[in-house]
Amino acid sequence: MDIKKVIVTGRMYKELEKLASMDTKREYLFLPEAEVCPNHFEWADGYVAFKPTESFHFGNLQWVHALGAGVDAFLFNREWKKDVVLTRTVGSFGQKIGEYCLSYILADIHRHGHFQHTQVQNVWMPSKQKLLQELNIVIFGTGTIGEEVARMLQTFGVNVFGISRRGTANSHFTRVVPVSDVQAVLTQADWVINTLPLTPATERLFDSRLFSFMQSTGFINVGRGASVDDNALLEAIEQGHVRRAVLDVFRVEPLPVESPLWAHSNVVITPHISAVTGVEEAIEGLLAVLEGVDRGQEISQSVDVIRGY
Amino acid sequence: MDIKKVIVTGRMYKELEKLASMDTKREYLFLPEAEVCPNHFEWADGYVAFKPTESFHFGNLQWVHALGAGVDAFLFNREWKKDVVLTRTVGSFGQKIGEYCLSYILADIHRHGHFQHTQVQNVWMPSKQKLLQELNIVIFGTGTIGEEVARMLQTFGVNVFGISRRGTANSHFTRVVPVSDVQAVLTQADWVINTLPLTPATERLFDSRLFSFMQSTGFINVGRGASVDDNALLEAIEQGHVRRAVLDVFRVEPLPVESPLWAHSNVVITPHISAVTGVEEAIEGLLAVLEGVDRGQEISQSVDVIRGY
Repeated sequence: MDIKKVIVTGRMYKELEKLASMDTKREYLFLPEAEVCPNHFEWADGYVAFKPTESFHFGNLQWVHALGAGVDAFLFNREWKKDVVLTRTVGSFGQKIGEYCLSYILADIHRHGHFQHTQVQNVWMPSKQKLLQELNIVIFGTGTIGEEVARMLQTFGVNVFGISRRGTANSHFTRVVPVSDVQAVLTQADWVINTLPLTPATERLFDSRLFSFMQSTGFINVGRGASVDDNALLEAIEQGHVRRAVLDVFRVEPLPVESPLWAHSNVVITPHISAVTGVEEAIEGLLAVLEGVDRGQEISQSVDVIRGY
Repeated sequence: MDIKKVIVTGRMYKELEKLASMDTKREYLFLPEAEVCPNHFEWADGYVAFKPTESFHFGNLQWVHALGAGVDAFLFNREWKKDVVLTRTVGSFGQKIGEYCLSYILADIHRHGHFQHTQVQNVWMPSKQKLLQELNIVIFGTGTIGEEVARMLQTFGVNVFGISRRGTANSHFTRVVPVSDVQAVLTQADWVINTLPLTPATERLFDSRLFSFMQSTGFINVGRGASVDDNALLEAIEQGHVRRAVLDVFRVEPLPVESPLWAHSNVVITPHISAVTGVEEAIEGLLAVLEGVDRGQEISQSVDVIRGY
């Protein structure tokens, strides 16, 4: 593969302009999304963005690079052109998402909301808090992100269960269970964390049935919004299966104003910030991929477009 | 030392009654604080509690055991009888306090308060969060608690500075600095955590001068309230030296209703819960001390009554 002309677009396009001087082997075009025309895809052999533009088509592209960790914007409900290589940013998403999850789990253990409330009332009412090591946490997804979240939790002695398609063992988890056997671990879970990519197999995976196995469980979604049936989630909260939901991703983003999630007292909404790509790591990731391309090496950041992640 | 008769008192006295059947070598008396009379100190050779009762005197005591990690209730502003051995509970306080501190540092990084606010307004406004590894954190105290907090933060790549009397190096800290050289590290600190015991040397250690070195710093007090000059702290918040204070301990506890700390929007008040002694660990700690006593061994949980910790 020989990449000579690259379009860079999306919210970071301005900040990425320094790429041109860092990599003089190629011609770059930096454009806001609205200015990317169908013609550009005839000119370019590379496309770098968080997602396809409205005008996106494969044209003469040989290579597409996703600036985020998720590639569902490129693959989900879209037929991929077989010989186009899709790569993604790896970066420090696992660490960021791990710290995001830990922030909400610890705030819950240490009852931040409760003490905020008693402070307003000038009430002094001590209570004993749990340690992380007393928790059972189930992580859906044992890829680079799920694994890093598990590793982080394990350093605190948390009992971490992983859920994957096949249940292949992984040393960062106490046990990995295939998604078909999920019931037994969910009934014991204090927290469930979804880190799964969006694929046909994970769309609406979190439905009434799955939520019904949980018992007063905390649920964190840092994967993709479309993996959750929002109505089933709201019902699970009403029925006590889910005690608290911390949601960073949604089927439609920004989350529409009319969503009942906004006003729910047991739901925390954050605006897809658990793993924001930084400019430096975007550049680093991109240059690492291009180095592999130039050397004709196998590219570790490649996405399996059939599996969808 | 031969311990045969032990008074057990304080808020945990009922739950500790099972000690009598676990340790039949001694006679135990379990009493609420108000029922402990001066006579009991003639009868007993051992005293177990969180603090001295009103009626406390040394009488025939040979041994006093503190159920908490702090011993200032016994030693601060009190003359100790030289041949009475003072021991304390070690337990999992470092881990508990570490998780408490981490919960507030992560909630701050991940802007829980901000997103709580934008959620109420149905506003979607992404922002990029820092990673823990980008922070400089200064811990006052490099004893068992400070060290464990440092160890925990270090696993996230935090740059952790320790402050101790002599500045003796400790592998859990990037660097340990003597309290006399504190200015240089405080000016770079994102967070300052006090884990120091209360002694004449640490009373009002956090005064206007010390706070003036901080620059928009987060301050956590999990040591003792009397180490902080509250007025100096409030002034430091007004002047921007301290950006946010998370206080678990106070000069007077419960914190009096008239304290201006309660209503301050940059102050978090928790009711001395960062390291609550559990019944099981209290019993475990106590029996470990008594085993050492019975064997005539050196007791690792002993307090240096001259240093005061």
